[in-house]
Amino acid sequence: MQVGFPFFINLACTGVIPTRAMSPHVPITHDEIVADVARALTLGVQMMHLHARDAEGVQTADPEPYGRLVEAIRALPGGRELIVGVTTSGRRDAGFESRARVLDLDGDAKPDMASLTLSSLNFVQSASVNAPDTIRRLAQRMRERGIRPELEVFDVGMANFARVLLSEGLVQAPLYVNVLLGNIAGAQPDLLQLAAILAALPSGCIVAIAGLGRFQLGANGLGLLMANGVRVGLEDNLWFDRQRSVEASNESLVQRIIAQAALWERPLMSRTELRNQLGMTI
Amino acid sequence: MQVGFPFFINLACTGVIPTRAMSPHVPITHDEIVADVARALTLGVQMMHLHARDAEGVQTADPEPYGRLVEAIRALPGGRELIVGVTTSGRRDAGFESRARVLDLDGDAKPDMASLTLSSLNFVQSASVNAPDTIRRLAQRMRERGIRPELEVFDVGMANFARVLLSEGLVQAPLYVNVLLGNIAGAQPDLLQLAAILAALPSGCIVAIAGLGRFQLGANGLGLLMANGVRVGLEDNLWFDRQRSVEASNESLVQRIIAQAALWERPLMSRTELRNQLGMTI
Repeated sequence: MQVGFPFFINLACTGVIPTRAMSPHVPITHDEIVADVARALTLGVQMMHLHARDAEGVQTADPEPYGRLVEAIRALPGGRELIVGVTTSGRRDAGFESRARVLDLDGDAKPDMASLTLSSLNFVQSASVNAPDTIRRLAQRMRERGIRPELEVFDVGMANFARVLLSEGLVQAPLYVNVLLGNIAGAQPDLLQLAAILAALPSGCIVAIAGLGRFQLGANGLGLLMANGVRVGLEDNLWFDRQRSVEASNESLVQRIIAQAALWERPLMSRTELRNQLGMTI
Repeated sequence: MQVGFPFFINLACTGVIPTRAMSPHVPITHDEIVADVARALTLGVQMMHLHARDAEGVQTADPEPYGRLVEAIRALPGGRELIVGVTTSGRRDAGFESRARVLDLDGDAKPDMASLTLSSLNFVQSASVNAPDTIRRLAQRMRERGIRPELEVFDVGMANFARVLLSEGLVQAPLYVNVLLGNIAGAQPDLLQLAAILAALPSGCIVAIAGLGRFQLGANGLGLLMANGVRVGLEDNLWFDRQRSVEASNESLVQRIIAQAALWERPLMSRTELRNQLGMTI
């Protein structure tokens, strides 16, 4: 039970899949993403998870737009304290070299974190391939570059693989983990399944709970009760309500989380406090 | 996950322990209890769990004050639809005869439900003795009288005993169950422990989740996410906040639950709908 303790929000604002046709509110361009991050900073969000798109609006692993995004975010009020994570998603290209390029960003363009999905898995329409060797090489490169892995766990075995990487010295405590529930071939927002994942993780992880699609609302609720924080945002879910009658925005989703948290006596921690918990300097 | 579905509140307004010295808001006298029930009806509460006190304010098993309470509640607007439960608590007298007297109430004084704690257990300062034979005789008497048992489950074994009673024909589906978390010698508001209890219960139970003392807030949260309803009220917890700086009232506790539920898309079901789910006529 984490009721009564300060919490954090990891805002996944864009993702790979949403298009302008799917949502009027999803930020696609550089300027749109920076504007959403600025609003999130005002609301108190402590962590962002970024995906950049190319000129056609398609998810890209090109480091250039990521570097521009991180630089622009650092210049925003509160942007230096914000924990900025970038994707190393292998959904479009599963190879190490392509995915690792964002880890070479430097200076004000360097991200604090980069995602590290801890196994291959199936989503609703496709496989996401993350071979063991690719995961280890990405972890190794992140360690060399001083970029913290944003561990992504969709099922119990992925939590076990966090232990493996820890024992191999490829990741180091305190670990940051997103537990993403509700994938069609993954763990669901269920008491026993979440308990199994949390028990399988190494002790002392800083955990945020996310839910995909209509599972976002309930999964985030479990996060507010049981975890250090929640991951929310249009990357995971485009609708504010379960009936799909109101289109969500990143702002409305964050505002609801903050309102819910207040009713469970969970104030937002400061961005500096989250950095301290993760052992991250600015 | 019960997010998105209508829910209910079982208000345990008085209990055995709270005194006027402990809380300015706990209803002790007949008039105070009826006034709290009237407020609860206005808020939409569907179920009440009643303890009566004697002239000295001490918990009593004397059926007379229970009968007067139930009659007065039936005369309130909405009072006929309200599901009214009375205690058969053995905390002060563990014997069957004393505890069964409330089951003889009739006419407008007859309760809809009566509590049935499913094992002996320890509370923080004392044992609560509910011998198997006493439980069975109380269940049998309830069945003969057409009074529904309000099953009380503090741990996994008590959930198992619900299966035993069901197999013996002493209770009948659909079962109503309060799962009470946070007792010092019972299950805690923990993912795995609650999952174990819910798995141990017979399938198809209508379940409300309660929490004792400072565990009320989080346990009710689990109820809002994972169960049909919540049990809340001053019987279980006298403080609105975990810091114990604001004294709770039954009204403020119910109002908070309704506000929380709205943020998880859980509207209050009507009293008639809850009666229908439980197979109870008026």
